Amino acid sequence: MKKQLLLVVAAVALALIQTTRAGDPDILTDYVIPPNTPAPVDGGFFTFTGMRALVSSPFPSTFKVFKAGMEQFPALNGQSVSYAVLMYPSGTVNPVHTHPRSAELLFLVQGTLEVGFVDTTNKLFTQSLQQGDVFVFPKGLVHFQYNADAKNPAVAMSAFGSANAGTVSLPNTLFNSTIDDTVLALSFKTDVGTIQKLKAGLKG
Amino acid sequence: MKKQLLLVVAAVALALIQTTRAGDPDILTDYVIPPNTPAPVDGGFFTFTGMRALVSSPFPSTFKVFKAGMEQFPALNGQSVSYAVLMYPSGTVNPVHTHPRSAELLFLVQGTLEVGFVDTTNKLFTQSLQQGDVFVFPKGLVHFQYNADAKNPAVAMSAFGSANAGTVSLPNTLFNSTIDDTVLALSFKTDVGTIQKLKAGLKG
Amino acid sequence: MKKQLLLVVAAVALALIQTTRAGDPDILTDYVIPPNTPAPVDGGFFTFTGMRALVSSPFPSTFKVFKAGMEQFPALNGQSVSYAVLMYPSGTVNPVHTHPRSAELLFLVQGTLEVGFVDTTNKLFTQSLQQGDVFVFPKGLVHFQYNADAKNPAVAMSAFGSANAGTVSLPNTLFNSTIDDTVLALSFKTDVGTIQKLKAGLKG
Amino acid sequence: MKKQLLLVVAAVALALIQTTRAGDPDILTDYVIPPNTPAPVDGGFFTFTGMRALVSSPFPSTFKVFKAGMEQFPALNGQSVSYAVLMYPSGTVNPVHTHPRSAELLFLVQGTLEVGFVDTTNKLFTQSLQQGDVFVFPKGLVHFQYNADAKNPAVAMSAFGSANAGTVSLPNTLFNSTIDDTVLALSFKTDVGTIQKLKAGLKG
Amino acid sequence: MKKQLLLVVAAVALALIQTTRAGDPDILTDYVIPPNTPAPVDGGFFTFTGMRALVSSPFPSTFKVFKAGMEQFPALNGQSVSYAVLMYPSGTVNPVHTHPRSAELLFLVQGTLEVGFVDTTNKLFTQSLQQGDVFVFPKGLVHFQYNADAKNPAVAMSAFGSANAGTVSLPNTLFNSTIDDTVLALSFKTDVGTIQKLKAGLKG
Amino acid sequence: MKKQLLLVVAAVALALIQTTRAGDPDILTDYVIPPNTPAPVDGGFFTFTGMRALVSSPFPSTFKVFKAGMEQFPALNGQSVSYAVLMYPSGTVNPVHTHPRSAELLFLVQGTLEVGFVDTTNKLFTQSLQQGDVFVFPKGLVHFQYNADAKNPAVAMSAFGSANAGTVSLPNTLFNSTIDDTVLALSFKTDVGTIQKLKAGLKG
Repeated sequence: MKKQLLLVVAAVALALIQTTRAGDPDILTDYVIPPNTPAPVDGGFFTFTGMRALVSSPFPSTFKVFKAGMEQFPALNGQSVSYAVLMYPSGTVNPVHTHPRSAELLFLVQGTLEVGFVDTTNKLFTQSLQQGDVFVFPKGLVHFQYNADAKNPAVAMSAFGSANAGTVSLPNTLFNSTIDDTVLALSFKTDVGTIQKLKAGLKG
Repeated sequence: MKKQLLLVVAAVALALIQTTRAGDPDILTDYVIPPNTPAPVDGGFFTFTGMRALVSSPFPSTFKVFKAGMEQFPALNGQSVSYAVLMYPSGTVNPVHTHPRSAELLFLVQGTLEVGFVDTTNKLFTQSLQQGDVFVFPKGLVHFQYNADAKNPAVAMSAFGSANAGTVSLPNTLFNSTIDDTVLALSFKTDVGTIQKLKAGLKG
Repeated sequence: MKKQLLLVVAAVALALIQTTRAGDPDILTDYVIPPNTPAPVDGGFFTFTGMRALVSSPFPSTFKVFKAGMEQFPALNGQSVSYAVLMYPSGTVNPVHTHPRSAELLFLVQGTLEVGFVDTTNKLFTQSLQQGDVFVFPKGLVHFQYNADAKNPAVAMSAFGSANAGTVSLPNTLFNSTIDDTVLALSFKTDVGTIQKLKAGLKG
Repeated sequence: MKKQLLLVVAAVALALIQTTRAGDPDILTDYVIPPNTPAPVDGGFFTFTGMRALVSSPFPSTFKVFKAGMEQFPALNGQSVSYAVLMYPSGTVNPVHTHPRSAELLFLVQGTLEVGFVDTTNKLFTQSLQQGDVFVFPKGLVHFQYNADAKNPAVAMSAFGSANAGTVSLPNTLFNSTIDDTVLALSFKTDVGTIQKLKAGLKG
Repeated sequence: MKKQLLLVVAAVALALIQTTRAGDPDILTDYVIPPNTPAPVDGGFFTFTGMRALVSSPFPSTFKVFKAGMEQFPALNGQSVSYAVLMYPSGTVNPVHTHPRSAELLFLVQGTLEVGFVDTTNKLFTQSLQQGDVFVFPKGLVHFQYNADAKNPAVAMSAFGSANAGTVSLPNTLFNSTIDDTVLALSFKTDVGTIQKLKAGLKG
Repeated sequence: MKKQLLLVVAAVALALIQTTRAGDPDILTDYVIPPNTPAPVDGGFFTFTGMRALVSSPFPSTFKVFKAGMEQFPALNGQSVSYAVLMYPSGTVNPVHTHPRSAELLFLVQGTLEVGFVDTTNKLFTQSLQQGDVFVFPKGLVHFQYNADAKNPAVAMSAFGSANAGTVSLPNTLFNSTIDDTVLALSFKTDVGTIQKLKAGLKG
């Protein structure tokens, strides 16, 4: 019985964490310690070491994102800020996407990058970035980055004004999530065959 | 064993207090699932069917409000929006009231309606609404609606920019809540007899 | 003339002070009057009559949205709420889209409707709505509505917890905004020909 | 002259930029200087001396409120806090009212005070305060204070978590603002004669 | 026993739901009752009596702060306001400090006071306050108060626009918190000896 | 000329409306264009090139901060995020400081770094960071970084969850801002001579 009850308690605790993730920008304490954090809470709690490995790893062969958000780094809860490291081999793209809870501020650490976003009046803004340039993708808008360089990789760091900006990858959301073919065909003013072709490409 | 478990429960409760200090409207997740929601969470969780009945029910004989707020529809938690349907038989009023946590945006679906609010400089704003008109009652101000039509009922829908706008009905709050007669008589610069008459009318 | 102009400048400056006090969701005044509003400000300022016409107009032959947001109805500034009326002829869709600044709370006034959204873990939530049902599309997520009924039109009202929720129509944003074909082909893991076919369909 | 005027216009425009950056509770500057503030801005701008006179003035013969809010003290803009001093001769009341934009935290400096508020479930909470007691009236709820002492005056200070909490005096809002008699009679479930008697008492 | 424990767990879970809805500046309920509050919740819950004693106590011999914040007075949770009473014997100082979560609005109840703050451009603003004066220390900036009067004590009340403003006492934070001597000597462009002297003085 | 000037005034007024809609963290537009921005607004407006030079410049001989905040990069207004690049020659320190409007999320790009902050209970949290580590300094708390390596420089990037986090450098704020010697001596429990020595060191 003890086990059973502990499971219930654990479920409550988990539910708690899940809902307190909804814990906010304007916290009333210096920081938020999750209920199940082992004591003592010291400097280690405020440190995220998950990106150390990037330094010595070989460059990835496909586009990769490495996140330091609230999920990876719980100390960010209530601090309204998070990071991502983005690595683009030559010729790769960070596919069109949105962040529902934050703007993105990209710093180009290495290489060159074609970036762009579309505002709610359907106007496209693009830029060719050099090493050291900073570009802001406004809150909630569709955007992308493309390393058009035929030879050299590119590396960027992105900061977000939320501990959990969230990402809506549009290719996957639209064509790899079982939205009905008819809805998609009508939305994109195309035939079901084209929709199915797109779906197949993203699954494969 | 009971003691041990209670300690665990208490620890959870304490953690709860500590962390809930930080929960807010600008949630850090897509949505908030209450801890006791039965799995699986599917489209039904995001649907409120409590107003289906209105469609086929006879028109009420007194003024009625039907709410779809966080209490009736838990999926609204963190989404900062809610609804009410308001049904006014001929000659009835939605009594003077305030919403402590939101403005109200009323859409007149059927009939005509006299509406008004008073701002903090004591200025009254009124309007005669026709079917299809939209009227905004600003945040926290005293307002009312009155179906002055001698024959026809009226129906409105109201949207709120909060999942739980709250309602302070002024007749009940003032004269049906056991506030001391002397306080009320002094407040309204009248005699205790008039206060007691008002109280009796609202109780009856 | 100098005096006259200075008065105009002073009026602008005053308007500025008045409105900048109030230029946000949590305004510090009861409401916000735009600088160029003709006096007197009365109940008409808080009324939007632009949807009266819908009542007597014939049902549109394609899907249509009629908005009552801050742009159409300036009194909404600072009140954190707005409306849209959505009219779906038989077999039409409200194409996949997001609102960068708000959740959407849809009330189905007439007909039936297939609705859905995809969360940031790429999970699809769908529902078949009946007349009188209410459905919430959480903040910033991709969603759609489809009137699958072969004969009957559908009408919905949507409330937003922002005076200007904004809309990102994904078909137009992605394929009707001059985003580079290569970026799109790489994003959607398809060939440039398919992208161009989609673009042509949305332009036509 | 053109130059001079353009300079004025430019100054207004600059002031605009400066203040619009800051026009909300979470300002993006240390403080907000209104456009027409005479230079130099020094410690005097952050000081409000309007309550010095209270110290040496005779006690008022009726209930009085002295405010230090954004209107009286512009430096409060963006600082989310304000004050009021409340002086109650024996047997007087601060009539039932609400603050649309803030809770009220009352500190009883002198005398005794009967206080109360009604929540949105229509529950009344009351308390008899002694000198030195602190009482919180939650955000947006109807409340009052009454000096029931037959001989002694009372003095309180109230703090608000907004630079401009706003006050809705319910007796004036309801019965001294030209709301239609019928609407009020229906709201309060009484006759028009009683409404007119209340109106006359508050005008007189 | 299982039943009993499950009830406790359920109570915690319910409290959780209740409080997570409400645990922030913009709470979604009228007020927040902590999970372990003994029933019934009445006017006493909204009253803080911890400052009654100040009235009859002798004046302290060193500078003292008496707080009525969320820690001392849980009803303040979600109400965005709190108080402190500050008592300055002749010649004492409220040492340089910041409040990370709020501005401070000081009302000088008795005596005279020299006050000041430094903004982020390193500009000092000072003022000599008389009895009845009000001074605002903007959000997050370094400030102090000093009773320079050779004979008379001073008393002030401070209001904060947060239920838990927090205090960073700079002498203790810098020189009584085990920050490394080298870091401090380099920061203050001085020698380790001076740092150690400052540390010794604050410990003693 | 009158016409011309009125046009300018009107332009200012329009700019006003446009920007006051947006004057806060939760803007009601996609982005905020300052009134005096030359047309056309294109991708360049969303790009900050001020850090390109860092790439090819020699390493600075003293500790340096390079900011990309709202002042340097106006497109950040309303986007709630900003950057700083921090360059630490061997043995240098980023002196103890606070940011009044944001947490800081530091990514160590090169070298090693000793970091620390003190919370409002006066507890010190420290950490030795390696290349690739991320450390969060919570909102409003005193913190520092120190490159203790005898030979190698260090480079960090810091992200802030505000477009204008602000910096309060404590050595300058306290000892290089003309705060009265007596106030400082009393605050730090030291003699005026020590205060004057600290002041001299920071001026020199």
